Amino acid sequence: MEKLTIVKVGGKIVEEDDTLQQLLVDFLKIEGAKILVHGGGRLATKMAEQLGIESRMIDGRRITDEDTLRVVTMVYAGLVNKKIVAGLQALGGNAVGLTGADMNIMRSDKRPVTTIDYGFAGDVKEVNTDALALLLQSGYIPVLSPLTHDKKGNLLNTNADTIAAETAKALVQLFDVTLIYCFEKSGVLMDEKDDNSIIPLINREIYATYKNSSVIQGGMIPKLDNSFQAVEAGVKQVIITKASEITGNRGTVIMNSPP
Amino acid sequence: MEKLTIVKVGGKIVEEDDTLQQLLVDFLKIEGAKILVHGGGRLATKMAEQLGIESRMIDGRRITDEDTLRVVTMVYAGLVNKKIVAGLQALGGNAVGLTGADMNIMRSDKRPVTTIDYGFAGDVKEVNTDALALLLQSGYIPVLSPLTHDKKGNLLNTNADTIAAETAKALVQLFDVTLIYCFEKSGVLMDEKDDNSIIPLINREIYATYKNSSVIQGGMIPKLDNSFQAVEAGVKQVIITKASEITGNRGTVIMNSPP
Repeated sequence: MEKLTIVKVGGKIVEEDDTLQQLLVDFLKIEGAKILVHGGGRLATKMAEQLGIESRMIDGRRITDEDTLRVVTMVYAGLVNKKIVAGLQALGGNAVGLTGADMNIMRSDKRPVTTIDYGFAGDVKEVNTDALALLLQSGYIPVLSPLTHDKKGNLLNTNADTIAAETAKALVQLFDVTLIYCFEKSGVLMDEKDDNSIIPLINREIYATYKNSSVIQGGMIPKLDNSFQAVEAGVKQVIITKASEITGNRGTVIMNSPP
Repeated sequence: MEKLTIVKVGGKIVEEDDTLQQLLVDFLKIEGAKILVHGGGRLATKMAEQLGIESRMIDGRRITDEDTLRVVTMVYAGLVNKKIVAGLQALGGNAVGLTGADMNIMRSDKRPVTTIDYGFAGDVKEVNTDALALLLQSGYIPVLSPLTHDKKGNLLNTNADTIAAETAKALVQLFDVTLIYCFEKSGVLMDEKDDNSIIPLINREIYATYKNSSVIQGGMIPKLDNSFQAVEAGVKQVIITKASEITGNRGTVIMNSPP
């Protein structure tokens, strides 16, 4: 099967021109089919502020009312996505920027209101693998915004990590998929303060051990849970590393099989 | 050859939800391959105002400085484009929103500075017909934003009428192309005040006659000059009509051949 690499980059990288430029150069060095998934939350918060719209977050998730949806649509699908696409084109990468609505790439349901109303937030239901395969097999590089749609005319704000994981899982039937999460640190660390203390490989057994001893804790747990879901769905490996290391050998590899 | 219809809609239509919805319903009734090109200038002016950025226009063309480029990128590629794409998807049309940077659809040169510096404004140089043909032949409906790129990493603001005409001209080798310009009136009128006084057909001869007698004047002249350029480049017909009439028989047809 053909190799496919999906790289997810966060808001901090896309915000700084120099870092973004380097990331795009490195990204294009990856051989074979590739997809870039981006965030943009910090820029959305800034833009909302400039427009006098309050940003409300619960557990790191944005409450997306109608005004906020307009802001994230402008920032994610417009500003950030097209900056990346134009940047990749300048470097010779034939990128195409997409939200979940484009080509019906990713359909989601509006998150049900429980004790919290997240507003226009989407939980992914379906990925259009045919459309992504058509683009990938024709040599295009999809650049995915963290927006999906409900196929009823509404765009829905969707976590970029989730977009990356759902895309990876959906494409395992057609490609040999590697998913790379870029992150501010060099990988999952033994000691949070020491960027050289990278745990090179984590499987379920190692994960259990490190969770028990609290080496792995906090925000790393949902990230790793997502990663294991992906590898258990057939993704070959998930790598957690720094943006500057996506073509290197540093970082933490999450694998299904024992080491 | 397969039939292709390219419809250009202006900013006023995309601004009003009801009018836009009706336009999308009508647009999907058009048989065969189709492309929608949209504007969004009014919304961009509003957004710029909200962000405290002054909109400067010369002869109806926007002076696009860096801040303005950010605004038009957000409004055209984000807000307007994705609203149309999600709207078409809800109606069963498999739309894909694109700027000229996406798939390198449309490359342009930054307009040279003469007495006027238009800033980040692009004059179209090249249309990627392969990419558009791939989408059209796979059943997708491209929705084009009035933005191009210079393949050096810059997005460039480009007139939506021009995007529509350049797309139409480039695709005549592959399709039997009709270009429809939507407009606030029912067509080119004999009497500007009478919306029933539509001139049904204009060829070069009729155009010359009506220009001489000042029946056709003002802003209609560049529109018709563009239309004749398109038909002379092989576009089968250009139709100038109201948004509500794109599937009807009203409107003015501009043709190359004598009536």
